[in-house]
Amino acid sequence: MKKSAIRIIIICIFTVMIYHPAQASSESTLNLMPVPREIILDGNKFRLDDSFCLSVEGKTNSRLYKAATRMLRRLAGRTGLFLPQDFITAQSDPSEPQMLITLLRTGELKLFEDESYQLIITNKQVQLKAETDIGALRGLETFLQLLSVDKDGYYFPTITINDAPRFPWRGLLIDVSRHFLPVEVIKRNLDGMAAVKMNVFHWHLVDDQGFRIECKSWPRLHEMGSDGFYYTQEQIKDIIAYAADRGIRVVPEFDVPAHSTSWLVGYPELGSAPGPYTIERGWGIKDPTMNPANEFTYEFLDKFFGEMAALFPDDYLHIGGDENNGKHWNANEQIQQFMRDNGISDNHALQAHFNKRILQILTKYNKKMIGWDEIFQPTLTTNIVIHSWRGHESLIKSAQQGYMGILSNGYYIDLIQPAEYHYLNDPIPENTPLTEAEQKRILGGEATSWGELVTYETVDSRIWPRTAAIAERLWSSQSIRGVEDMYRRLQKMSFRLEELGLNHIKNYEMMLRRLTNGQDISALKTFVDLIQQVKFYKRHHQGVTYTSYSPLTRVVDAARPESLTTRNFSRMVDNFIENPQKSRAEEIRYWLELWHGNHEKLLEIIQRSPILKEIVTMSEDLAAISATGLEAVEYIYENKNASKRWRKRSLKLIENARKPRGQVELMALDSIEKLVQAAMNKNK
Amino acid sequence: MKKSAIRIIIICIFTVMIYHPAQASSESTLNLMPVPREIILDGNKFRLDDSFCLSVEGKTNSRLYKAATRMLRRLAGRTGLFLPQDFITAQSDPSEPQMLITLLRTGELKLFEDESYQLIITNKQVQLKAETDIGALRGLETFLQLLSVDKDGYYFPTITINDAPRFPWRGLLIDVSRHFLPVEVIKRNLDGMAAVKMNVFHWHLVDDQGFRIECKSWPRLHEMGSDGFYYTQEQIKDIIAYAADRGIRVVPEFDVPAHSTSWLVGYPELGSAPGPYTIERGWGIKDPTMNPANEFTYEFLDKFFGEMAALFPDDYLHIGGDENNGKHWNANEQIQQFMRDNGISDNHALQAHFNKRILQILTKYNKKMIGWDEIFQPTLTTNIVIHSWRGHESLIKSAQQGYMGILSNGYYIDLIQPAEYHYLNDPIPENTPLTEAEQKRILGGEATSWGELVTYETVDSRIWPRTAAIAERLWSSQSIRGVEDMYRRLQKMSFRLEELGLNHIKNYEMMLRRLTNGQDISALKTFVDLIQQVKFYKRHHQGVTYTSYSPLTRVVDAARPESLTTRNFSRMVDNFIENPQKSRAEEIRYWLELWHGNHEKLLEIIQRSPILKEIVTMSEDLAAISATGLEAVEYIYENKNASKRWRKRSLKLIENARKPRGQVELMALDSIEKLVQAAMNKNK
Repeated sequence: MKKSAIRIIIICIFTVMIYHPAQASSESTLNLMPVPREIILDGNKFRLDDSFCLSVEGKTNSRLYKAATRMLRRLAGRTGLFLPQDFITAQSDPSEPQMLITLLRTGELKLFEDESYQLIITNKQVQLKAETDIGALRGLETFLQLLSVDKDGYYFPTITINDAPRFPWRGLLIDVSRHFLPVEVIKRNLDGMAAVKMNVFHWHLVDDQGFRIECKSWPRLHEMGSDGFYYTQEQIKDIIAYAADRGIRVVPEFDVPAHSTSWLVGYPELGSAPGPYTIERGWGIKDPTMNPANEFTYEFLDKFFGEMAALFPDDYLHIGGDENNGKHWNANEQIQQFMRDNGISDNHALQAHFNKRILQILTKYNKKMIGWDEIFQPTLTTNIVIHSWRGHESLIKSAQQGYMGILSNGYYIDLIQPAEYHYLNDPIPENTPLTEAEQKRILGGEATSWGELVTYETVDSRIWPRTAAIAERLWSSQSIRGVEDMYRRLQKMSFRLEELGLNHIKNYEMMLRRLTNGQDISALKTFVDLIQQVKFYKRHHQGVTYTSYSPLTRVVDAARPESLTTRNFSRMVDNFIENPQKSRAEEIRYWLELWHGNHEKLLEIIQRSPILKEIVTMSEDLAAISATGLEAVEYIYENKNASKRWRKRSLKLIENARKPRGQVELMALDSIEKLVQAAMNKNK
Repeated sequence: MKKSAIRIIIICIFTVMIYHPAQASSESTLNLMPVPREIILDGNKFRLDDSFCLSVEGKTNSRLYKAATRMLRRLAGRTGLFLPQDFITAQSDPSEPQMLITLLRTGELKLFEDESYQLIITNKQVQLKAETDIGALRGLETFLQLLSVDKDGYYFPTITINDAPRFPWRGLLIDVSRHFLPVEVIKRNLDGMAAVKMNVFHWHLVDDQGFRIECKSWPRLHEMGSDGFYYTQEQIKDIIAYAADRGIRVVPEFDVPAHSTSWLVGYPELGSAPGPYTIERGWGIKDPTMNPANEFTYEFLDKFFGEMAALFPDDYLHIGGDENNGKHWNANEQIQQFMRDNGISDNHALQAHFNKRILQILTKYNKKMIGWDEIFQPTLTTNIVIHSWRGHESLIKSAQQGYMGILSNGYYIDLIQPAEYHYLNDPIPENTPLTEAEQKRILGGEATSWGELVTYETVDSRIWPRTAAIAERLWSSQSIRGVEDMYRRLQKMSFRLEELGLNHIKNYEMMLRRLTNGQDISALKTFVDLIQQVKFYKRHHQGVTYTSYSPLTRVVDAARPESLTTRNFSRMVDNFIENPQKSRAEEIRYWLELWHGNHEKLLEIIQRSPILKEIVTMSEDLAAISATGLEAVEYIYENKNASKRWRKRSLKLIENARKPRGQVELMALDSIEKLVQAAMNKNK
């Protein structure tokens, strides 16, 4: 960075700026995520030392005091500086604060609240200005992300940032029914959300496999439906307050009328079949469904939603409404009679009838309704929100008919897709057919952490860091789409998220230690760095039947959702094929030799750890295809022709290695196949 | 292991058995910790597969059901086996259980409760028998520790174990006042305690720096004395229930009359000085003390202890009573007048007067009193327990006068002593002057995790694994004292403790990642593996003034309390000096060369991470003394004479390197000095 102040105005072309030659030194590369709306960078530095203190002015409140205090602790934690302020309060008013936070009013935790902020850093002072304290919170996270180092110590680049979100609904759904997640798991994920400026925690509290919230009106719900694993109402309030302190709304979901086995264990009279019911241990779409033809169901739900409406302050309440297979409705004569009596033609219309009753109840308790695609029907009032798991088409259709919607299709982080896939999935793509007014009805989206195959040990690694890419998609401009730069920043963000207690990185090696029974993990790590769980729902279709108490501690659970080693290797291969230089060949050889030699070491470990037996064949395969890869590198590097026979044999080896084992897939195969094909192209 | 059944009866000579040549294969080496009282090993195996199920018979209860369920989950987690049972309940009764748990009665959580158990494993079945469910819980932990592997898979050795604790009070004190620790930190440490059969959680809830518990009678205590960091009573109950489920008593400590600043913030009228008081941010012995001459103090404490007595079910309540410097008493004329009026000669007698009043209050609420050494005075009833921080002498004296006592001196895990030191510290050493009857008054001991310099991020690493060595001291026979074998088992235990969520291993690298600002941590790890925080209270006397909000994220905080790298290196050096073989020389050279070459790599990292600047000199020193060490190895190996000049220079280098930097010390210096001296001895 030149010392002379250079003023570059960059609006929505962040990635260009990142690689601007004037900022080639690593110290000055910004690591902001999500990318702010507008950045004006000035070439100077605000030096941070142990005299740093701040002051809050204007309409302040305890939320901002607490957030400012947490910011100071994180700053001290990263730098080791003994900063002078203890707890920021109304009394904290240093005579010469280096940082000044000003705001106009206390923000409300509701849809469309102002979250904008302006951050101005000069070489003398930091100013953070916001309409609301919630905006100031977002600015504090940006401020922390700007912390930089050079040979003289810590500093912040001098900068002006004007920022506001693109979408007002930037959510994360966490399913705590399939596997219960203790309070602290939720809290640390709320911290993660706040760090990437997300603002809606969608709490999937209830499903077939567990009723996870204390209910005072109907206590058998949690008493009989949870195996003892539920949140008390005090814990719920504690989490709501924790979220509120971070500017995050909490939208609870109570999925009705299907996905409701756990309700029926204590109250079988709610069901469409006679019961008795037991807590579901398996996965998939289940038959138990509430009886929409029984007036008791509505009395029950009226009392229930009344209690929940008082407990959860948010305007919205999510009623699920998805995946009703109708089997128990079809088999129930009373329901069939009810349909005939009321001219209800089919199950879809019956669910519409049910939803209308639920909407009445919610409206009575001053709640707005949100539900999955299935709740959409043009007779409902337009203040409901459609939550789309089905996709853009469905979202577009409802927006055109006047309904608000949010997108989750494409943000299913449980399906083990790369960050890139989620990142490029835009709630309003460039080619949208929607008018500007209709576009305003697309409120944003939600990443969904479904819980069938995650526990408190692994859930963080399924959510982070990929969810940060989704957070950026929902906050930053549509034009911010540079995948390489996103990955660069995501990696920075990932280790920064650890300071919030998230264990997505550190539990990896912990799990490998358990898998190796306390042996040296390095060979296993080399292997697991290269594999991923099978994508989509395939894990349920590989000859293993999972239940809610199956161990989730195997190799497939340790493996990260996205193999960055593979990603880096793939780039190396592309570079090498493009230009087979010596240094590039050596780089690739290093990895292929490592993988080739790994099997023997890993085998020794496996012999003392039977839980690893399921990966023996794949580890062998890796050794074999790495040898093939090395041969291919030689052909390409030496510019020699590979034989057709060699190619045939090589491709067969690779094909063979594609077979999942223990529900994991070997990555890097595409890259090795590329090498093989490139070796053949020499033959043309 | 021979296939023919070998019956070896081993009573109290565990370490001998461990190294019995018949069990030389690593698979059959037992990793039990603490060592059981009596082991009869039979040379067969009970095979574990995915049909394993268990049944509970006799006077069963939900505590045991839950514990058995948790045991199954941990077993499945380690082995990856899809075990068939979900939640053990009264209904779980498989027709042919491979494991049968029987017990006679529900145990009570009180001092002297029966915790014995018998575990009999044949090649067909596992039988766990116990008088109480608490004993059965201890047996379940032993069972899990017996899980073994061979080439055919998982198994348990056939064995008969008769076990019971040596001491009835095996505690861990956790100080949550100096740094608040969230609920989950306490819970995972309770799990760790249960895994090593500890049975008393001593909860140091209140001190000058924070009042950490909600008090309904006197709400300003937590409202004004905690900065908002306290446990609600529901959380307290939750933790008590969690501990009870693991057979652990919870003894709360409310330190009076000193260590009480945080009480006085909300209720200055309790104090001996006029106030106002603010929450203490510094460390050390502070002046604020309750006024023992004011009747209001006793009215206040009566109501307070009444509320706490109802909240905490344990028979014992800890009143602290330590470190009253008397300054505010001396300065208060009303107190001085009170002493004259009542013939109280000095502050010690005044505190005795205070304690008597407190004892009356506790007795009224059916609580027995426990307090630190200072409460000891021969006029108190003998059902009190003296908690000795001062040491054996003090403990002996009170036992001789009829008082029960527990030992914490020697178990101060915050003072960064090696596990060995704590392990060899026996509450009743062999040479005790106590009669057998007097010995019975020594109830056991408590490890103490004082909180000045630990946070939720680092506290696990200060407690574990060293506390497991203390747990063994308190459970196993006096004669179990093999240090090498203890370390071997401790290392196994350490990684097993991770399955309970303890982060003593995994937070190490997380902290290094933060310290390196996301760079490659390997050079920093090589360095930090070799250092330790300065011992005892030295960290407060190294030119840095710590407060309760100082960052505890520096190198000194990342460093583990015991450098096992140093320990291993020391053994290598001893072996080498004893017999300077080639292979031994090579082993030592490997490490010395690694350390010698580390500085350059580390320097690169430090240049991009200013928080690491404080270790530059020490890293340089390490390079220099490693070079010296390499020279010494050559002299010894070649059997050459080192010059006096070389020795002088070398010893000076080592002396230089002993200087703490950034509150850490370079370990392994003694070993390198040994090498230097040995190189000189050739000169004789």
